[in-house]
Amino acid sequence: MVEALDNNPPHKVVIVGGGFGGLYAAKALAKAKVDVTLIDKRNFHLFQPLLYQVATGTLSPADISSPLRAVLSKSKNTQVLLGEVSDIDPEAQELVMGDEKIPYDTLIVATGAKHSYFGKDNWEEFAPGLKTVEDAIEMRRRIFTAFEAAEKEKDPAKRRAWLTFVVVGGGPTGVELAGAIAELAYKTLKEDFRNIDTTETQVILLEGLDRVLPPFAPELSQEAEISLKQLGVVVQTKTLVTNIENDIVTLKQGEEVKQIASKTVLWAAGVKASAMGKVLAERTGVECDRAGRVIVESDLSIKGHSNIFVVGDLANFSHQNGKPLPGVAPVAKQEGEYVAALVQKRLQGQTLPAFNYTDKGSLAMIGQNAAVVDLGFIKLKGFFAWLFWLVIHIYFLIEFDNKLVVMIQWVWNYVTRNRGARLITGQEVALEVKAVNNNGHYQATEKRLPVNV
Amino acid sequence: MVEALDNNPPHKVVIVGGGFGGLYAAKALAKAKVDVTLIDKRNFHLFQPLLYQVATGTLSPADISSPLRAVLSKSKNTQVLLGEVSDIDPEAQELVMGDEKIPYDTLIVATGAKHSYFGKDNWEEFAPGLKTVEDAIEMRRRIFTAFEAAEKEKDPAKRRAWLTFVVVGGGPTGVELAGAIAELAYKTLKEDFRNIDTTETQVILLEGLDRVLPPFAPELSQEAEISLKQLGVVVQTKTLVTNIENDIVTLKQGEEVKQIASKTVLWAAGVKASAMGKVLAERTGVECDRAGRVIVESDLSIKGHSNIFVVGDLANFSHQNGKPLPGVAPVAKQEGEYVAALVQKRLQGQTLPAFNYTDKGSLAMIGQNAAVVDLGFIKLKGFFAWLFWLVIHIYFLIEFDNKLVVMIQWVWNYVTRNRGARLITGQEVALEVKAVNNNGHYQATEKRLPVNV
Repeated sequence: MVEALDNNPPHKVVIVGGGFGGLYAAKALAKAKVDVTLIDKRNFHLFQPLLYQVATGTLSPADISSPLRAVLSKSKNTQVLLGEVSDIDPEAQELVMGDEKIPYDTLIVATGAKHSYFGKDNWEEFAPGLKTVEDAIEMRRRIFTAFEAAEKEKDPAKRRAWLTFVVVGGGPTGVELAGAIAELAYKTLKEDFRNIDTTETQVILLEGLDRVLPPFAPELSQEAEISLKQLGVVVQTKTLVTNIENDIVTLKQGEEVKQIASKTVLWAAGVKASAMGKVLAERTGVECDRAGRVIVESDLSIKGHSNIFVVGDLANFSHQNGKPLPGVAPVAKQEGEYVAALVQKRLQGQTLPAFNYTDKGSLAMIGQNAAVVDLGFIKLKGFFAWLFWLVIHIYFLIEFDNKLVVMIQWVWNYVTRNRGARLITGQEVALEVKAVNNNGHYQATEKRLPVNV
Repeated sequence: MVEALDNNPPHKVVIVGGGFGGLYAAKALAKAKVDVTLIDKRNFHLFQPLLYQVATGTLSPADISSPLRAVLSKSKNTQVLLGEVSDIDPEAQELVMGDEKIPYDTLIVATGAKHSYFGKDNWEEFAPGLKTVEDAIEMRRRIFTAFEAAEKEKDPAKRRAWLTFVVVGGGPTGVELAGAIAELAYKTLKEDFRNIDTTETQVILLEGLDRVLPPFAPELSQEAEISLKQLGVVVQTKTLVTNIENDIVTLKQGEEVKQIASKTVLWAAGVKASAMGKVLAERTGVECDRAGRVIVESDLSIKGHSNIFVVGDLANFSHQNGKPLPGVAPVAKQEGEYVAALVQKRLQGQTLPAFNYTDKGSLAMIGQNAAVVDLGFIKLKGFFAWLFWLVIHIYFLIEFDNKLVVMIQWVWNYVTRNRGARLITGQEVALEVKAVNNNGHYQATEKRLPVNV
């Protein structure tokens, strides 16, 4: 009868954020005797590891997004709320969302991270990052507009700048972006222009450390670098970006200072925690690290508040080997599932041993037939790594939804070497949102932009 | 040797607009001994007949868009230019595009139409139309946001207004939109909400004439109306909209005046010609009709300017039976191909008989297993019409590009009754574009919007 006592009325679990951490927690609670509320700003879960394929015109946003309501429609104990949580009251056990207060018994915060310019926020205008669907559409617009602008440009120096792409950051996202842009320029778009030769495009990948893909084994970093070079990417390691402004990227390599003229700089270098970290710190006194991540206990709860958990990119979990776990999907997934299990154990008056992350390996796509996979016990490269990468991603996409389409798209792109999703959108018509009028509609004014970019 | 004389240097054909008219003209000239320039504001051709499926979350924009450069990459005599033509100088035989002048020997204007509010432009804010990818994304945002808002709304009257969708205009687009929204509400979303019952949704289709699909045979209009009603759509014919404001649609049915409270009004009622019609009228003295369409000669040229042609939705061609040809894709396609053939004949010192449109029939989708097809000699309804509709659309999509994906998506949606593309985007972050700075980039400021719609 302990269970009934603890759980009558049903225990309320509120999850903030529908990324990997929050969504897997919700899924793991689907059959539990608790009330679950999942709150997200967006109505869909985004499969972020494939966002670079939207940015480079291979996939559409919907191909890598799953409507949260659809994913959770069979979880009858679960309610999805669209909204943004602005505050937490740990004493009253309530969240603030707009004018509403949302009570919780257990709170799981999984609001993730956004890209960070290490204090140089003015770089963002010149070097957009890649976290949201809108970010990806903006990158796509810039990349394809650059080729269009080069086609029209008569001044050779400016044309060169339009055909120079700089990717800052040699982690998986940076490697995948650089590889995809090189494939675009040297393969997909080769026949499409009349005034420019797209094979003269320069794709430059910058990394501060001494090798790309620093989390991988050194021999795979080396393999990735070789594959990138074969694709035509210029890889510059031990390179610090000191400024990005007015289409000039300034670098420092040792003592040497260099400048690159580029109209398209893409940011894949750093992330910082979302704003909820700060809110939690203020309201509960929990400590955050320099990136704004919340330092969690060994069971992913926060100090002094055993009913508040932080999972995913927002959490700094350092109990395993002293280093924080990386901000990747598998960590978030396992953390979300762990907390869901722990909540259910607690309702039975039991507990679980500390969270322990099982690293199943890392993988990164470089280009057609080229990827690197590090599973610890085995390392793959080239075609087999590429195939493995495809299979793994399809597997995880299908788990949520109908992403058979993605597989077909990939097979088709492989055969035709085409990229169907290379639309320049959001260019012609921009909506300036003035205010929400008293009917609850946005009042928008159309602005026609000059197209001659 | 006549040919060589006429065509040395090569005859310059400039096509403005990459819709059905312009693109089929360009494709038909791919092997001609002429220089072709295709100018469009966008970098892709849009398969407009399927735009309503983007607006209702079935397909992604890229599924129905083909990059113009990819479609024409093998046409080595053809150059694609991204830009907007602002003026024409028929004496100098030049177009004005930004700072550039573009010379032509033959000009084909195919800039199409946009939606029209019959002078009531203030209705647009409340009742967006469906012509561009951005329009479709905005409709999609409004439709799915309405269900989200209803889920949160506590006031029953307001909730009812959120769950009432009004589609103005009973042509193919209006019928297809209304059918798709009804399927969403009564089938796809049925299990997804906890506070509302989406089957209480009202979808109301308004048509001024006495039947929906006026261009079809009366028995098919009747069939369509029956199918719509079976899906749950309320069809109101002989109904004039007299005002749309503040979430209230005011109607006149005979002498009776009614009001409908609806947060989501969609416009599928009228179109007017694009701005190039006015430019042509001013510069050449050609006459336009009340909808702004250019009145063309029997060979689609304009009076007094035998080297300027107008095709597609911008043209008013009334030489066949006194009535202008309708603004549909097959008319535009045949007109574009006719002009391409005529230009080649002229280069050989020959000509062609007057343009003659071959009407192959009309078709409209209503919902799963329900469509109407009027081929003149045969009329189909129900499942076979639906299958015919699918096959025809796939056939035309594949002609351009890799749209196998669309077929897979449809098969998948049919089996699962899901809609994968129901993303609410463009909501959280809106870009206010301030100016193009001196580096050629747009300077954008992020504005965070309240999400509590």
